[in-house]
Amino acid sequence: MTIESFLLKSEGEWKSMRSGHSLAFQQFEEVISQIKITILKLTDSKVSALLSSIPLQTGIPTTPFRMAWNAESDWEPDDPNQVSSGECILIPIKQSENNGLLIRSIGYAESEQAISKYKLLNDDTFTLSTEYGQSVAEERIWFISPNVRCRSSVLKTISGNGILQTSFSSEVRKLDLNG
Amino acid sequence: MTIESFLLKSEGEWKSMRSGHSLAFQQFEEVISQIKITILKLTDSKVSALLSSIPLQTGIPTTPFRMAWNAESDWEPDDPNQVSSGECILIPIKQSENNGLLIRSIGYAESEQAISKYKLLNDDTFTLSTEYGQSVAEERIWFISPNVRCRSSVLKTISGNGILQTSFSSEVRKLDLNG
Repeated sequence: MTIESFLLKSEGEWKSMRSGHSLAFQQFEEVISQIKITILKLTDSKVSALLSSIPLQTGIPTTPFRMAWNAESDWEPDDPNQVSSGECILIPIKQSENNGLLIRSIGYAESEQAISKYKLLNDDTFTLSTEYGQSVAEERIWFISPNVRCRSSVLKTISGNGILQTSFSSEVRKLDLNG
Repeated sequence: MTIESFLLKSEGEWKSMRSGHSLAFQQFEEVISQIKITILKLTDSKVSALLSSIPLQTGIPTTPFRMAWNAESDWEPDDPNQVSSGECILIPIKQSENNGLLIRSIGYAESEQAISKYKLLNDDTFTLSTEYGQSVAEERIWFISPNVRCRSSVLKTISGNGILQTSFSSEVRKLDLNG
């Protein structure tokens, strides 16, 4: 699996069930959301704008994509069906066959740009590590069938000892039966 | 990581938060449970009884252990705090440095013996595959710190195309602060 083939397999519309675990308080969160992944051209003006907004990175930009989502969360006691949505542009910068960087734009639900490190493991799991201030988010995404992906994430302190929360999503491709 | 070191790291008492996703119905399940893992001796009479109850397997038995749990599930509408518990004996049979079989006894919450295949991936993830009639359960367990394990599972049809359900657990070691 290459980063390009992983993303081509990921393109489309997904229905996601996400469970969050807040470990210190033993609280569960449940979110159902829609995710849409669209591969963009490297010549897309939003892609070139994002690339020129960051310091020059070693590596080759490849397979940029847009991710859009909207979620219904159970976590807002005042409004149990609050819908949150957002979208952002992501650009992998390949540094070797199985690792590189992933640049993420500010979106209308993202407060800041992020530069993550990605790696493709030899069982085709895609891993992503992103630093946010004093914490690090580690994500894993893997296919369990062509139409089902799993995604787990861990948020920990930068020292690695404090695990703040974990989450797990099951993503099922929405098949358009009307062609 | 070897199977022996993975199990030694796993010994102890854990508090588990488990989320189940039923994909067809988009239903969530949440379970909090206690898990206790105890390494046994190969000479333990229950271990030898289990080994002699199964057909002879190629490989070397190593690091047998007992797993006991009790769970509070949210899935019984008549009794939201129903507690279920059980225990079983498990024996890895090593066939190479990173793979082999895992034999599981009938326990008082298990209706049948099972023989699973295990593998240790090169990022230290432990994977387990178990066939039950027309379905296969695939599990992954990995440490995200010495005191936190994650466990994901997928239940699919034997043909591999039908994904029936997924689950994810965050397991936090219970530290005995009184020594």
